Amino acid sequence: MNRRMIFYMVENIVKLEAVLLVLPLLVSLCYNEMNCLSAFSITLIAAAAVGVALTLIFKPKNKVIYAKEGFIIVTLAWVFLSVIGAMPFLISGEVTNFFDAFFETVSGFTTTGASILTDVEKMSHGLLFWRSFTHWIGGMGVLVLIMAIIPTDSGRAIHILRAEMAGPVIGKIVPKIKDTAKILYFIYFVITVVEMGFLFFGGMPLFDSAVHALGTAGTGGFGIKADSLAGYSPYLQWVITVFMLIFGINFNLFYLLLIRKFKPVITNRELWVYAGIVVISAGIITVSIYPLYNNFSDSVRHSFFQVASIVSTTGYSSTDFNLWPDLARNIIFILMFFGGCAGSTAGGLKISRLMILFKSIQKDVRHLLHPRSVASVKLEGKPLDNTILHSVTTYFSIYIVLIAATFLLLSFEPNFDFEANITASISCCNNVGPGLGLVGPMSGYGGYSDFSKLVLSIAMLFGRLEIYPVLLALYPKTWRKK
Amino acid sequence: MNRRMIFYMVENIVKLEAVLLVLPLLVSLCYNEMNCLSAFSITLIAAAAVGVALTLIFKPKNKVIYAKEGFIIVTLAWVFLSVIGAMPFLISGEVTNFFDAFFETVSGFTTTGASILTDVEKMSHGLLFWRSFTHWIGGMGVLVLIMAIIPTDSGRAIHILRAEMAGPVIGKIVPKIKDTAKILYFIYFVITVVEMGFLFFGGMPLFDSAVHALGTAGTGGFGIKADSLAGYSPYLQWVITVFMLIFGINFNLFYLLLIRKFKPVITNRELWVYAGIVVISAGIITVSIYPLYNNFSDSVRHSFFQVASIVSTTGYSSTDFNLWPDLARNIIFILMFFGGCAGSTAGGLKISRLMILFKSIQKDVRHLLHPRSVASVKLEGKPLDNTILHSVTTYFSIYIVLIAATFLLLSFEPNFDFEANITASISCCNNVGPGLGLVGPMSGYGGYSDFSKLVLSIAMLFGRLEIYPVLLALYPKTWRKK
Repeated sequence: MNRRMIFYMVENIVKLEAVLLVLPLLVSLCYNEMNCLSAFSITLIAAAAVGVALTLIFKPKNKVIYAKEGFIIVTLAWVFLSVIGAMPFLISGEVTNFFDAFFETVSGFTTTGASILTDVEKMSHGLLFWRSFTHWIGGMGVLVLIMAIIPTDSGRAIHILRAEMAGPVIGKIVPKIKDTAKILYFIYFVITVVEMGFLFFGGMPLFDSAVHALGTAGTGGFGIKADSLAGYSPYLQWVITVFMLIFGINFNLFYLLLIRKFKPVITNRELWVYAGIVVISAGIITVSIYPLYNNFSDSVRHSFFQVASIVSTTGYSSTDFNLWPDLARNIIFILMFFGGCAGSTAGGLKISRLMILFKSIQKDVRHLLHPRSVASVKLEGKPLDNTILHSVTTYFSIYIVLIAATFLLLSFEPNFDFEANITASISCCNNVGPGLGLVGPMSGYGGYSDFSKLVLSIAMLFGRLEIYPVLLALYPKTWRKK
Repeated sequence: MNRRMIFYMVENIVKLEAVLLVLPLLVSLCYNEMNCLSAFSITLIAAAAVGVALTLIFKPKNKVIYAKEGFIIVTLAWVFLSVIGAMPFLISGEVTNFFDAFFETVSGFTTTGASILTDVEKMSHGLLFWRSFTHWIGGMGVLVLIMAIIPTDSGRAIHILRAEMAGPVIGKIVPKIKDTAKILYFIYFVITVVEMGFLFFGGMPLFDSAVHALGTAGTGGFGIKADSLAGYSPYLQWVITVFMLIFGINFNLFYLLLIRKFKPVITNRELWVYAGIVVISAGIITVSIYPLYNNFSDSVRHSFFQVASIVSTTGYSSTDFNLWPDLARNIIFILMFFGGCAGSTAGGLKISRLMILFKSIQKDVRHLLHPRSVASVKLEGKPLDNTILHSVTTYFSIYIVLIAATFLLLSFEPNFDFEANITASISCCNNVGPGLGLVGPMSGYGGYSDFSKLVLSIAMLFGRLEIYPVLLALYPKTWRKK
């Protein structure tokens, strides 16, 4: 266990966060929000001081790390990131309870978008910007960002990349981790700016365009209006819909487009399944909600918006889907588990994992029919060995156990009912944001007790880091020296 | 595909059912219920006629069957059994809708115990007896019964036993299938009679003792009172509690006791985990519901009764647990997934499957910590190979998909809400019976639409036969000649 290396990486995260806080600080300055300005300044200075102090104390003797250290680095980094990130909310006085501020920040970094705020429109611009910016940082991964910047041992850094990035199989797009990280962030930045342009030139105010572009890019979902995106024009809602879907796509495919390799993009199975799920779900929902809107274009728009929002685990809403008929509502509920493509900023199980799950089931069924047949299972043309099949079905099992455990720990809630608690558990574990009923898209998580907020915060971290890193960090044996 | 052999087995099932119908016919005779008497007579004669006619048409050329035929035989047998078993309800006029009668019969045979009856106390004794008797027949398995009676090729019959009996690993307790089946039914019969004695001599009327013993033995749960077991004395409730737990234990252990091999029983891990789950759950619930009853002995009794009822997937109730605090209610909800031990009459996932699931997760976590370690996973002292581990995690995945699909198909329900639909899906897939909210222990499934009743009936069959047989029977490729 290379503890010094763990601390070294965490120090870097703390210092990086200090740098990132400059952006919301500038926003506060623009809007002349004094409480925010001081809150961000204090947090920034404190983070920088802690970061530098830790650097002086802990120096890594060597940079050799294994998978184990990778998991712990990622978990600790995310916890530090969230605790520091919660400070501006508290110092500014706009959020008064630590558990509220922590929940909101974890929800931001994990790109969940579940909020404890009761009146989001009262918040200052600096904090609203910070909330959405945490989505952007957390979406691609803060350690991926670190690796794009600081020099790391490339052969070892893959352990960190693997622990932070989502999906069953993580590949480097170019041989060097550092270059991979840079390319990913470059693509991420460009698409975010493009979306912002589409929004701004479509009539959305500049500030609104910025926060919504950041929130869409990270597939987060923090809005700045009480009714999320419902008040914006149909054009703007369609722009958000398209970009929510784009950010749910594997970033490797964008890289392939960049280097003009079109064929592997067009033949990508996961992409087609993803598109199929979106079109079929939205199609059924359109028919189901038509009587509510009595208008085809509204029905189509709301269907696609909500499906894109939930399947990409963003969580914005263009209408209150809680009021939809059961069929539409239940499809939304089931889609909460799905998530976008692997290697995207989306949460959830991921489409490729679902595909492997179904192939695994299919293989077992075939084996029952023809016990002697040895059928190989393929994904994207490559055969999947039994280890991957098994790791995916095991991941699914532990994921269901995680949801059940979260739900069970919400049993002490006086204010929320069965429907709210079960959908809150599922929504937080999948980093979606809204649930159904009392935690529907037009309601919030503010009414939960401090204990439940902490439980849901931890569930969000489990979900974003795909369970194992957090589980291992909580497992005492991991910390043993030998 | 040996189609003739499939028909041969189904014919035998039909003929067997004709014989089994003699018992409720006699009950109707005792109580002088003319409508029932004619209903059972007509059904009996029709079943016998169909059975004999089929026998004359289809004669198997050879008795060679494989796993494939085993699955189809079991599925077809259960569908025939249920359709014929539904007839007495309809002919007697006490149930007027086919889907209601089919639901009730499937619920009986699959030992679910979910009921569409709005006033069970109005039903005639003959039908009430038949309902409970279907639990008893379905509990151990009707094909197991057939194998105990008719001569079958022992080497092949294992395919049928495997398809009908529950649990991840099915073993013969003695080398011959026929003897295994006989021993299982002997033990089953004796314990049922013992329970009946305890109930009868504890003051329960003879008829009530009989139906409740049959319902407990099959871990079914059809009661004969509107408030299930709530109206009976604490002693009787404790007797039922103990026997519900007993019927949730692997029958192989009873056989070992019979041949005086005590050590493997005492060291059986699944038994201990089962006991641990019961004691811990009931303990927490006792504390949680104490304020409701203000009485320690009542709290303990109701806790153990409900936990035993749900974990063994029986579904009787001694009180309305729907009114319990969230913690107690949520534990009950989670226990719905568990089920009893493998090789018992209980439904659900089964304790041993859960144990393998956890061991599988543990193995994967360990592998992440020590990528080069090769740890073997053991159950009951025997190493489990990767094939079994993988088949259990895959089974769990398909099981969750089954629940999700059932829930989605309930979307067209006008009368039930999210809580009712999701718990109904889980309860029916696990053959428990009651759910929460509108399908709680003091409510029923009568308000569901015909379509939803059919969906839930199929879900119960999927659950009882552990998914694969029904799935394969619905899979077109299974039916191909070659």
